[in-house]
This record gives sequence, C-alpha cells and structure tokens, in this order.
Amino acid sequence: MTAANLPKIKFLKTPTSQAWVEQAIAHLDTILLDHSHCERKAAGVAINLMFRYPSSVKLIKELTAIAKEELEHFEQVNQWLERRGVALAPLSAPPYGASLNQQVRRDEPQRMLDLLLVSGLIEARSHERLGLLSQYCPDPELAKFYRGLMASEARHYGIYWVLATTYFDQEIVRERLEELATVESQLLSTLYPEARIHS
Amino acid sequence: MTAANLPKIKFLKTPTSQAWVEQAIAHLDTILLDHSHCERKAAGVAINLMFRYPSSVKLIKELTAIAKEELEHFEQVNQWLERRGVALAPLSAPPYGASLNQQVRRDEPQRMLDLLLVSGLIEARSHERLGLLSQYCPDPELAKFYRGLMASEARHYGIYWVLATTYFDQEIVRERLEELATVESQLLSTLYPEARIHS
Repeated sequence: MTAANLPKIKFLKTPTSQAWVEQAIAHLDTILLDHSHCERKAAGVAINLMFRYPSSVKLIKELTAIAKEELEHFEQVNQWLERRGVALAPLSAPPYGASLNQQVRRDEPQRMLDLLLVSGLIEARSHERLGLLSQYCPDPELAKFYRGLMASEARHYGIYWVLATTYFDQEIVRERLEELATVESQLLSTLYPEARIHS
Repeated sequence: MTAANLPKIKFLKTPTSQAWVEQAIAHLDTILLDHSHCERKAAGVAINLMFRYPSSVKLIKELTAIAKEELEHFEQVNQWLERRGVALAPLSAPPYGASLNQQVRRDEPQRMLDLLLVSGLIEARSHERLGLLSQYCPDPELAKFYRGLMASEARHYGIYWVLATTYFDQEIVRERLEELATVESQLLSTLYPEARIHS
C-alpha cells in the first residue's frame, strides 16, 4: 500500500505518507468522526472570514457557497456516522490547525492573505486525503462516498487561490504560498499518534 | 400606520412599536444591509451552538438545517442589496444582541438553555419585524420578498423552543423564557437612534 504514486495536489509541498493511510484505514470510524468536525469547522471558518471582510463582495459570494457546501457535507458525514453506529462526540484536535493559524500575520492586509492561503492549504490537504481514503477504504460504499465528496471539495482550494489573487498581486500570493506550504508539510512530517484527517 | 393590530407572536412580551416601523421604512436600504448582517450572524450562532454541543444529535441536525437556510437568506438579501445598488459594508450593531447575551448564565446546563432561548427570542422578533416590513414596505417586490422569507423563518423560533424542551423540563423552559422575554421587550422599549432590524 503506497500513497506515493498518487498525482501531486497543487499547493502541497509533500504528499501524504503511507503511514497516515495505514493509520486512517485502521481507524475509519474515528476518521469519519473527525471528518464531521472538519466539515463543521470549515463552514465556521468561511463564515468568520465573511464576518471579518464584510465589504469584499467576491469573497462574500464565494465563501457563502463554500459554507453551504461544507454544511451539506457535514450532514452527509453525520448520516454515515449514524449508519455505522458511531455516536457524535467531541474529539481532541491535532496541532495542525492551530499551528497553521499561528503563521497568520496579525496586521492587514497580510492577515487576509494568510487567512485565505491557510484555508486553501487545509482544503488542498483534505482533498488529497479524501482521495486516499476513496482509494484505500475497504468499504466500497464508503469509498464511493469519499470519491463523491472529493469531486465537489476539489474546487474549494482553487476558490481560495482565486480569492487571494483577486485581492493581492499574484507574485506576492505565490511567494507567501510557498512559505506556508513548506510549514504545512513540515507540520505533517511526524504522524500524530491519534487517527485524524490532519494527523 | 400602526403595528398594534398585528397578531401577537408567541414568545414576545411586547409587540414592536409604530416608531420602529416608521424608522425602518424611512431607511429601507440600511435595514436591508443590517438584515444581511443578521442572516450571516444567525448562521454563525447556529454553527457555534453545534460546536459547543457536539454530542447532541437532535440539536446538530436541526441547527445544520437552520444554518443552511440562514445562508440562503443571506445570499438573497445580498442580491437585493446589489439590485438596489447598496454596497456591502460593515454596520455598527445595536446593543440588543450583546445585551441579550449578557443574560446567558455561564454554567451548564443553564448556559445551553439560555443560548437556545435567546436564539429563539431573536428569531421570534426577526419574524415579527420581517412581517411588519412585508406589510408596510412601499416597494411591492421587496414586500413580497419579506413575506417569502417570513414563511421559512417562521419555523426557526419554533425549532429553538422544541430543542429547549428536548433537553430541559418544559416547566423550567417556560419559566426561563418568561424572564428572558421580559428582558427582550425591555431592551426594545427605547428605540435605537440608527435604523436596524433590532433597533
């Protein structure tokens, strides 16, 4: 079982390790529960961005659509949890999200750029890992579900990139993305001991 | 022009004053912009409640549906702003929301009950005021839009009541609602000088 032969996702510096795939497949119910939290958090992040930049028309339009879609996915993942008899429950978060947020510069307009790129990177990594789940998941129905999610998730990181280049010069976006993507890959270079989407 | 002959909305202690109706109709564009912020905030509040109570299945299900619907309304209100040439912009909030949140007790399970009832009261008041806008708005198209929104908003405060009585004894819910509804009406007894949905 190797993840190395998957097509490389734009944005990501390093592909996900085989160790993550093995950890995830061995703890599918936990991964599903964490995935539910991720979808709800992604909707919350989009709404917070809308709250922070209330005059940015394109951002508001695109993120409203993303928030709605994340809530749809949240519902679908919760239906899978119900189907597999997994109770909704809190789950400790891996350091990934908080560590990426520490990279966000505090002053505008850098803050806006970093928030968009961090969201884009998280979406890109989620997209890559849902793809791995669709490929390696032993339950064909669940694998099909992951494939379906991927198809609509695929656009999200592209939208964050488009938003970044709407409000910032493309060269500045590219340089900052390089820096953040390097940190993102470093954060995942040691596997978190608990199975998570971003372990 | 009088609002006094409208049917009394369950939950609310005091109906909206004629003064609010006059203020709102005189500043319809500001009301629309504030309404946009209210819809986005309502979606955010529902998602925050889901975040706070991740194991409460019924709450999660109902609030996911509410959050999605609020985002739909947010989009629709923003389309109206575009149609009327009103730019998206931040707007200072009246003290209503923050003052109601001050009533929320800090310890569980009281906190959960109060959060549900405060959300229910805000929805009930929004429902009442959208009804007044649909009745008094001089633009028949916009009046029709408000009537349409009302029809789907009408369920929201009912859902918050049902959630409260799902997790708490009905008598306890009723008593606390009495207290909070009294505060809610007091907060609106003096008209806020700027036109807002909750001025």
